[in-house]
Amino acid sequence: MTAADAYAELIRRSKELGVLNSCAAVLSWDQHTYMPARGAGLRGEQMAFLASLSHQKFTDPKIGELLAAVEGSDLVKEPDADASANVRELRRAYDRATKIPASLVDELARVTTAAQQAWEQAKKANQFATFRPHLERIVELKRQEADAVGFKDHRYNALIEEYEPGTTVVELKELFAGLTKRLVPLIQKVADSPKKPDRTILERDFPVERQKIFAESAAVALGFNFAAGRLDTTSHPFCSGFGPGDCRITTRYNPRFFPEAFFGVMHETGHALYEQNLPAEHFGTPLGVACSFGIHESQSRLWENQVGRSRPFWDHFFPRLRQTFPALADVSLEAFYFAVNDVKPSLIRVEADEATYNLHIALRFELELALLSGDLAVVDLPGAWNERFAALFGLAVPDDARGCLQDIHWSFGGLGYFPTYTLGNLYAAQFMVAVKSDLGAESLTEDMRRGDFGRLKDWLVNNIHRNGQRYRAGELCRRATGNPLSPESFLLYLNEKNSELRGVC
Amino acid sequence: MTAADAYAELIRRSKELGVLNSCAAVLSWDQHTYMPARGAGLRGEQMAFLASLSHQKFTDPKIGELLAAVEGSDLVKEPDADASANVRELRRAYDRATKIPASLVDELARVTTAAQQAWEQAKKANQFATFRPHLERIVELKRQEADAVGFKDHRYNALIEEYEPGTTVVELKELFAGLTKRLVPLIQKVADSPKKPDRTILERDFPVERQKIFAESAAVALGFNFAAGRLDTTSHPFCSGFGPGDCRITTRYNPRFFPEAFFGVMHETGHALYEQNLPAEHFGTPLGVACSFGIHESQSRLWENQVGRSRPFWDHFFPRLRQTFPALADVSLEAFYFAVNDVKPSLIRVEADEATYNLHIALRFELELALLSGDLAVVDLPGAWNERFAALFGLAVPDDARGCLQDIHWSFGGLGYFPTYTLGNLYAAQFMVAVKSDLGAESLTEDMRRGDFGRLKDWLVNNIHRNGQRYRAGELCRRATGNPLSPESFLLYLNEKNSELRGVC
Repeated sequence: MTAADAYAELIRRSKELGVLNSCAAVLSWDQHTYMPARGAGLRGEQMAFLASLSHQKFTDPKIGELLAAVEGSDLVKEPDADASANVRELRRAYDRATKIPASLVDELARVTTAAQQAWEQAKKANQFATFRPHLERIVELKRQEADAVGFKDHRYNALIEEYEPGTTVVELKELFAGLTKRLVPLIQKVADSPKKPDRTILERDFPVERQKIFAESAAVALGFNFAAGRLDTTSHPFCSGFGPGDCRITTRYNPRFFPEAFFGVMHETGHALYEQNLPAEHFGTPLGVACSFGIHESQSRLWENQVGRSRPFWDHFFPRLRQTFPALADVSLEAFYFAVNDVKPSLIRVEADEATYNLHIALRFELELALLSGDLAVVDLPGAWNERFAALFGLAVPDDARGCLQDIHWSFGGLGYFPTYTLGNLYAAQFMVAVKSDLGAESLTEDMRRGDFGRLKDWLVNNIHRNGQRYRAGELCRRATGNPLSPESFLLYLNEKNSELRGVC
Repeated sequence: MTAADAYAELIRRSKELGVLNSCAAVLSWDQHTYMPARGAGLRGEQMAFLASLSHQKFTDPKIGELLAAVEGSDLVKEPDADASANVRELRRAYDRATKIPASLVDELARVTTAAQQAWEQAKKANQFATFRPHLERIVELKRQEADAVGFKDHRYNALIEEYEPGTTVVELKELFAGLTKRLVPLIQKVADSPKKPDRTILERDFPVERQKIFAESAAVALGFNFAAGRLDTTSHPFCSGFGPGDCRITTRYNPRFFPEAFFGVMHETGHALYEQNLPAEHFGTPLGVACSFGIHESQSRLWENQVGRSRPFWDHFFPRLRQTFPALADVSLEAFYFAVNDVKPSLIRVEADEATYNLHIALRFELELALLSGDLAVVDLPGAWNERFAALFGLAVPDDARGCLQDIHWSFGGLGYFPTYTLGNLYAAQFMVAVKSDLGAESLTEDMRRGDFGRLKDWLVNNIHRNGQRYRAGELCRRATGNPLSPESFLLYLNEKNSELRGVC
């Protein structure tokens, strides 16, 4: 078999797996949107069948043979060639999938299914002890997973590789240290400022049907294609790109709190624009898949915060907003803009503002590292959480439900996932600086004031979306912005906004 | 391998196929309800992938070996044993699937996909010539299919076996002859009667939201479990039972015509009650699958017509109906009951009343037989249709769009499908006679007048639903009613109702 034949067969199999996995994506979407309660049992069997078939097809030794036949051939001589990226990323995923023993995969599935139920109960009852043995087992199994996959320096590198390939503990530690050092005083200055927004203007009457229409109109303005997607309602918002022509987002509506659904839709639309603009011809291969979790999150954060909480955005949308919601008749653009940009330490990550949010992540990253290395025992987690939380936020954690039990991630074994949220924030700010430099800050502002986001979207399509996994996240960032990732752009952005709003920083 | 081991492995594979096929059912439902337009391409790939995998797994020669190892063993000595029914029906399906060459399966898929598009265009343009070459090819391929499967006496027997196993051309000819002979004069008498209902009372203001609530309340009263199912809106109504705990029905609403959505929901609820009450423990095996298309249709027709157009049903529901729809304030129960039971020859099958409907089917059955045998050339179909239509209905067919082009079935190769609609009507009437005999006609009427359909549903669950494919349709009918299928109960039912309404017959 020639290298070209091997590559063609590899791509054929990869695309078939793409179709297979997209079937599971449809079933999962249905499970969270429309499936009746009693359908859960059958749905579990369907998902297990598809997952097992997918794992079986992907770990077929033939895939390893095909990869070996292409690697080292002329096809992958140019690092930027299609084949180079596809082979590099298929190799990474194949090695990971084949190195983890089936017995460990099975046990992780079993343990995390039980752990998610235990976590829900523990959170409800505010009783860490219920969750403790499950988390202990998960930490142990994730150590085994890291050992099976192999790693340099720190087991955590093997875990983060699943979400952010190429990123290391050393890099993350440096990023978080630099960020936290300057974020904490910034947040303190904001807290000390006498200027406070009136947040109650966001807690008025916002009829759900009107919220839906308004959010949809914003999604359309951003570039979401409703002929190739949908917006539905779920208790936990998400975006799921099935493949070319079909990307679904969800949100949840609170009739007495405007930001929840609206910024949720902005966020998911950011994810969706990425999915809708991946190159369709590469569907099912790494070149047709988003670069990393961090880069994906950069797209949601860019539209949610960099755009959606910006002044020119509301220059355009606020008159429409006030027309849509009579409850805002007496509210000025300035008051509204200030309210949606409040910065204030709080207990819950998912309710945090764009600045303090990253301290929540820094805390979790630190604790995950300590748990995995054994420096922190699971039994000591609540104490460690509360102590560090007080140091970072200046707040006492009243109970574990609002402390170390608040997030689902550890219960599904997602150690290594949290840092990608902050990476997303940092990438988003750095991309936005590059966009302004490339397109002109003033003319971009003028675009937004007219409700025209076309050039911004096109920049993202050309510099981020259409690349798929052609480059790892770090390289993609260098190519798009001219620099490696740093917290500078993000900190500058926060400083500017908060000095504009409160005259601090 | 012992026969018991072989049977266990056969059932394991059959259940796995059940789960696999149920994934395709979810995707198909989504395709017709919520999929955005541009998702069609990917959906086609997904469906093709799942269908091909299912075919490949089911035609695995190992299935044949397992069947052979069980057949003739003690496991299948008792004809009523679980294994006997499962092995009998798996053998039938396996033989059919393996006898038809893959090349013919592929060509049928290709030809019918193109034919459905051509049919749509032909119907729209009222131009039979556009569809003719496609239908010619389909008839030829269906002949080849029948030859590959094998048959006694008439190729049509091999085709109807796909929908109504065990039924033959000879039986159907006798049924239709007996039915038509007495239906034609009955319909004539009704037409000659001076008493006519006022059908315009059904063409008033029926707000869609209220229609939905009213139809859902009726579905609940019949026994549809909304914790294990849903009702959505589609352009072509259907029922899809994914498996235990998840059965979805759809309807379409006309804000100016009440019967469309309401009797549609009654109809689909009849199908859904069957699906919801199949034995869950047999899911994926023949014992967990509905008996036949004709029996399935009997359940929809029973609830739609035998119940839903009955006097005691409206004794209960009409006061609620008039409360729900102010447009009916001046309408009496008698006028409404008469209007929904009008009998009148018309051109379009899907709009036909429960009596004339069967003449539409008799016509199609006759023409299908002639097409397949070669007695009728496709080019002569429009003429033959119009001639027979005039004879049966006393109406001139104005154009082919309202004539031989009106139905989709032939374009997807569904020759042999139509007769199951009338079988459903006949079974429904015969089942209802048996129900009344078993439960007492008067007390059943009292139940309905109170809106209580529990005993009727239980009778159907026990006599029909829970049997799955334990018996073929004919045997199921004998066991449930004490008699083989005949048109007598149906004709008696029509005579009684129309003599009550118009004093004829």
